[in-house]
Amino acid sequence: MSELSQDQIWMQRAIELAKLGQYSTKPNPNVGCVIVKDGQVVGEGFHPKAGQPHAEVFAMRQAGEQARGATAYVTLEPCAHYGRTPPCAEGLVEAGVAKAVVACPDPNPLVAGKGVQILKDAGIAVEVGVCQEEAHQLNLGFLKAMATGKPYVRLKVASSLDGRTAMASGESKWITGPEARLDVQHWRAISGVVITGIETVLADDCQLNVRQLPENADLSAAVQPKRLVLDRQGRLPLTAKILEQPESVMVMGPYRAELAALGVEQIEIQPLTDLLPFLVQKYQIYDVMVEAGATLSTAFLQEKLADEIISYVAPTFLGSSARAMFNAEFSVMAEQLRFKLHRVALVGNDVRLNLIPESV
Amino acid sequence: MSELSQDQIWMQRAIELAKLGQYSTKPNPNVGCVIVKDGQVVGEGFHPKAGQPHAEVFAMRQAGEQARGATAYVTLEPCAHYGRTPPCAEGLVEAGVAKAVVACPDPNPLVAGKGVQILKDAGIAVEVGVCQEEAHQLNLGFLKAMATGKPYVRLKVASSLDGRTAMASGESKWITGPEARLDVQHWRAISGVVITGIETVLADDCQLNVRQLPENADLSAAVQPKRLVLDRQGRLPLTAKILEQPESVMVMGPYRAELAALGVEQIEIQPLTDLLPFLVQKYQIYDVMVEAGATLSTAFLQEKLADEIISYVAPTFLGSSARAMFNAEFSVMAEQLRFKLHRVALVGNDVRLNLIPESV
Repeated sequence: MSELSQDQIWMQRAIELAKLGQYSTKPNPNVGCVIVKDGQVVGEGFHPKAGQPHAEVFAMRQAGEQARGATAYVTLEPCAHYGRTPPCAEGLVEAGVAKAVVACPDPNPLVAGKGVQILKDAGIAVEVGVCQEEAHQLNLGFLKAMATGKPYVRLKVASSLDGRTAMASGESKWITGPEARLDVQHWRAISGVVITGIETVLADDCQLNVRQLPENADLSAAVQPKRLVLDRQGRLPLTAKILEQPESVMVMGPYRAELAALGVEQIEIQPLTDLLPFLVQKYQIYDVMVEAGATLSTAFLQEKLADEIISYVAPTFLGSSARAMFNAEFSVMAEQLRFKLHRVALVGNDVRLNLIPESV
Repeated sequence: MSELSQDQIWMQRAIELAKLGQYSTKPNPNVGCVIVKDGQVVGEGFHPKAGQPHAEVFAMRQAGEQARGATAYVTLEPCAHYGRTPPCAEGLVEAGVAKAVVACPDPNPLVAGKGVQILKDAGIAVEVGVCQEEAHQLNLGFLKAMATGKPYVRLKVASSLDGRTAMASGESKWITGPEARLDVQHWRAISGVVITGIETVLADDCQLNVRQLPENADLSAAVQPKRLVLDRQGRLPLTAKILEQPESVMVMGPYRAELAALGVEQIEIQPLTDLLPFLVQKYQIYDVMVEAGATLSTAFLQEKLADEIISYVAPTFLGSSARAMFNAEFSVMAEQLRFKLHRVALVGNDVRLNLIPESV
């Protein structure tokens, strides 16, 4: 029991390290590694960015000879494939670690366990699953995409206590406060794409990029999410602010030469259920954030495409003629879309609820 | 600084003691008292019930001769008037305490400071205001009523995330879970009256009494709140469940001999703004809870009569044809009714928000 607790403590540290890459590793996963010998940390590392070494490599470099006979804690099963560098599992063998503790197994069913097998074959004691749930949270998109081919979809909604998103006129600045709007930037920054509808772009002329990060994280190191506009009728104006950085804009709509000329990636019109795996397969986009109006948000909810709802509730009443956040019409309670409360946080004078579907 | 911290620690204990009477003292305030000598508690007490001794009396009885030279911590300024017992301030003088620490001054502007003056005149060192905010929370209704003649009004609402309270058909069982419904019992139990509208009684045949208390508090010791039905057209059926205990029912409506025969207290029809101080003056009701449908709740909100909203939000979407929780119609954001988040709690799979008006 005390052995396990100690393992958990070191794995917590590895998880903290992994988070240091949360805004910069995409499409790669966040991974942290701690090497411990005789109760002392001798090496630490995290994966900072695609194209740079894996977490284990940094930790082993720091540990040097002290890795011999040590225990390595790593938040994700060490890789077993040759990429730009030799596989990390082999690196750990060569470094001479005596034990490896892994939080999450490799999510890809085709290669899962291969990294662990390399370690075991070399006589290294391996334990898998320590703090697995917490480590899983580091890479919800990557892990889901590797396992299922579909991205992890976060749907952001912001409403008054009476479930309204704007006055009937469209006036909506501001229902939530500045702290909530800053909080949104975090979720955008861990996403591969922010999806919105053309109506939202036309109404708000929004950019949906990351302009500031919580806790003063380094914005310049962050990988900006793509912005994907669903525009089935080809109405996106070339003067839209979102096109100020056209290279990170995607549009699903009829082909338009003028968008191609700007360098905008154009996607054929397809149902949402096809679009989501397409984003994984073609663009390695594993974390999708939806920030849209009631119509598109309702579509994601009704088609049960959201893995998580990030709901900001402002303590205000906007009245019954204001715009509803959710447009579907149900006649009996049995039709309701019910969620589990996963997390609750006070964000300024608003509340953030993280909800997951009840069936998950 | 360390002296003050020690005072705060003892006052916290006095506040905890006061809470032991929270369901049973009404209409009297919750008061706790701790007598400390040489760093040791020598007496403790709380006011358990109207007609029984005050907190100070219990603490002094327990302390006996050890009260001499001790410090008394009391959450509310000791009384200065002769009632069934001599004033507590004189009791403390006779007991020989050297110092008295008081959290809240007497709220009644006509008598405020008289208890403290008795103590000072006897040469006792007095400090007022230690943990005042927390002690104030013990008696929001009593303190407001003594200071203003008006009760403290808590408005309970329960809604889906999209701000709905029932399907269009009226179907509403259950939006919130059993934990939230148990939590409601606490707020009822600290109230002098639960106000509802006739529509709610007709639709739900509710009783609005306290049937269970959180943390297994003793239900038999609790003073049940009155139930007040606003029934301007005299529609309350004599078969309504709420009339099973007619002696604790009040009805505001046209006079009905059959209700009088049951022992129901009848109140003349009057505006809410008159009704609330009337409840204080005639019935010593200081804490009012409103549990009503959208029409009456909206009236309390629009007339700014709620001191606090207790809002349960269930993580579900009921759709745009379901009944709205708030019926007023606003056309611009400037009309919104905005609140401050005072407390947020997870209650089962629901969230409870305690909100107070922004201007307070």
